[in-house]
Amino acid sequence: MSDTILLDHGEGGAATARLVRDVFVRHLGSPPQLEDASVVDGGARVALTTDSFVVKPLQFPGGNIGKLAIAGTVNDLAMVGSQPRYLTAGFVLEEGLPIELLDRIVASMAACASEAGVRIVAGDTKVVGRGEADQLFINTSGLGIMPVGRYLSSASCQPGDAILVSGPIGDHGSAVLVAREGFGIQGDLQSDCQPLTDLVEALLVAAPGVRCMRDPTRGGLATTLTELAAASGVGMRLTETAIPIRRPVRAACELLGLDPLYVACEGRLIAVVPSDQADVALHALRGHRRGAQAARIGQVVVERGVVLHTVTGGNRPLVALEGAQLPRIC
Amino acid sequence: MSDTILLDHGEGGAATARLVRDVFVRHLGSPPQLEDASVVDGGARVALTTDSFVVKPLQFPGGNIGKLAIAGTVNDLAMVGSQPRYLTAGFVLEEGLPIELLDRIVASMAACASEAGVRIVAGDTKVVGRGEADQLFINTSGLGIMPVGRYLSSASCQPGDAILVSGPIGDHGSAVLVAREGFGIQGDLQSDCQPLTDLVEALLVAAPGVRCMRDPTRGGLATTLTELAAASGVGMRLTETAIPIRRPVRAACELLGLDPLYVACEGRLIAVVPSDQADVALHALRGHRRGAQAARIGQVVVERGVVLHTVTGGNRPLVALEGAQLPRIC
Repeated sequence: MSDTILLDHGEGGAATARLVRDVFVRHLGSPPQLEDASVVDGGARVALTTDSFVVKPLQFPGGNIGKLAIAGTVNDLAMVGSQPRYLTAGFVLEEGLPIELLDRIVASMAACASEAGVRIVAGDTKVVGRGEADQLFINTSGLGIMPVGRYLSSASCQPGDAILVSGPIGDHGSAVLVAREGFGIQGDLQSDCQPLTDLVEALLVAAPGVRCMRDPTRGGLATTLTELAAASGVGMRLTETAIPIRRPVRAACELLGLDPLYVACEGRLIAVVPSDQADVALHALRGHRRGAQAARIGQVVVERGVVLHTVTGGNRPLVALEGAQLPRIC
Repeated sequence: MSDTILLDHGEGGAATARLVRDVFVRHLGSPPQLEDASVVDGGARVALTTDSFVVKPLQFPGGNIGKLAIAGTVNDLAMVGSQPRYLTAGFVLEEGLPIELLDRIVASMAACASEAGVRIVAGDTKVVGRGEADQLFINTSGLGIMPVGRYLSSASCQPGDAILVSGPIGDHGSAVLVAREGFGIQGDLQSDCQPLTDLVEALLVAAPGVRCMRDPTRGGLATTLTELAAASGVGMRLTETAIPIRRPVRAACELLGLDPLYVACEGRLIAVVPSDQADVALHALRGHRRGAQAARIGQVVVERGVVLHTVTGGNRPLVALEGAQLPRIC
């Protein structure tokens, strides 16, 4: 087989079949059957989601586009309370992509899918010419089973609810940006990219009253909270000193002029929890290796707007991210 | 709003929200809820599929990338016998893409989804810089509900079965190629791109014994049949004169040195049917506006290999497409 991707690999013939066999099936296993679609066990209520990944560079400290594509979609399914089961994977490959690199990325997908307890049941590969894409884009879509009686909604936050975050914020975005641009920044920046399936189940078992969860990806913590507050018709008050941010992330953001509140995470969740379940929820998060640094960062209030009580004693309104703070971080 | 796509449109903030509202929600309607994933009604058995679309040019006679992205995924779901219900749509947009063009494409998606009876329940938009993608790529993934008791399989073809095709072949691939390259070819080339949901239901009601169906997309009729024959461990004998090919398609393929048997369709199906249901199946296809030119083109035999009885009385073995006959036709 050629060492790089050729246009032939996208044509649906013998070259495509070899690529599928030697890279995709080798890592991900055989699809349930050789059909246009895969038939799988469903459920009375299922969750569906989709995400395209265009992160640059393809590899960064803590992960690569393959791991990210699995974790990102698994987490979207988990955030609505579903149990992620099946993913599909669609690849757009640029002619000339080293097959060794693709192989490594698909191996990461397999490892992350296994860790998250999901199966990749359908795939698709397209190849475009040199200069018509930037190496590799991946779309993952997914299905999760909704347990009977579980209803979470972004519109259900109520005044008095506690706002929790499962760990330090801003790691993913800052790690990718520095991996891409360099800026001469040293330091222990590492993406938090990870699947949150098991953390979510631990949380929901301990605190079944959880109103809603979101993973603060593009736009970061601040944008996600403004969306939740708007959807519920409430406000939020946050305490800056309570928001966990790792020292290297804070330092990199200061150097780069970024606000870590708007920098993407890929392995954290925000949970809004009735106040009487806040302690048990926080305990459940902290008792799990993926949530050891969870924190209670604020509460829901009647007055609209998301406001940060700052370190210096001021009040800073947070609004949705307007422009391109960090292109291509997922 | 800007007339073209900016990197800001991909950042998950206010610019993204405006693009989603003014283009996607306007045509496709609101998603069921503002969450990371959509919760929808499922079923005990569901079909899942995914497809990425990179067709060039974005618009061609008979369709555009949006219509194609809906029809292609709907058809993959229909081919396994499921009833297509929900799609997701993931967009990778190149900075500078005219928003008017995106708008037109999304409007086509909405029209085709409506025609096919499916809802788009989740979406995602990423923007990459100029030169990092070729205008616009779309991934559509989908879920179909499997009716109780319906089991189709590519591995179930049996000697004696009839092979049907629902209409003329090669229209899509030749129309796209000529739209892209020109070659000075005039003539009535038009993609056959269309959703086949209702045609499939009409067929399966009339002929519940159908073994399997496939839509001959990349690799065309010949590649699809070699895959079916291999999956079932059988051979196939085809009659060249019985295979419907429109005159302009035949003429364009002759000029371009293409074999129409390997040129993609996007609105046709192949069905393998027990011989005692072949007539009723053909009648059902022909009675439907999407299958008016259906034909019986051959039969399944014990001896391995797919062989074409040619117009001139010879026997020509058909093998899987090897290389890049037509890049970026879907």
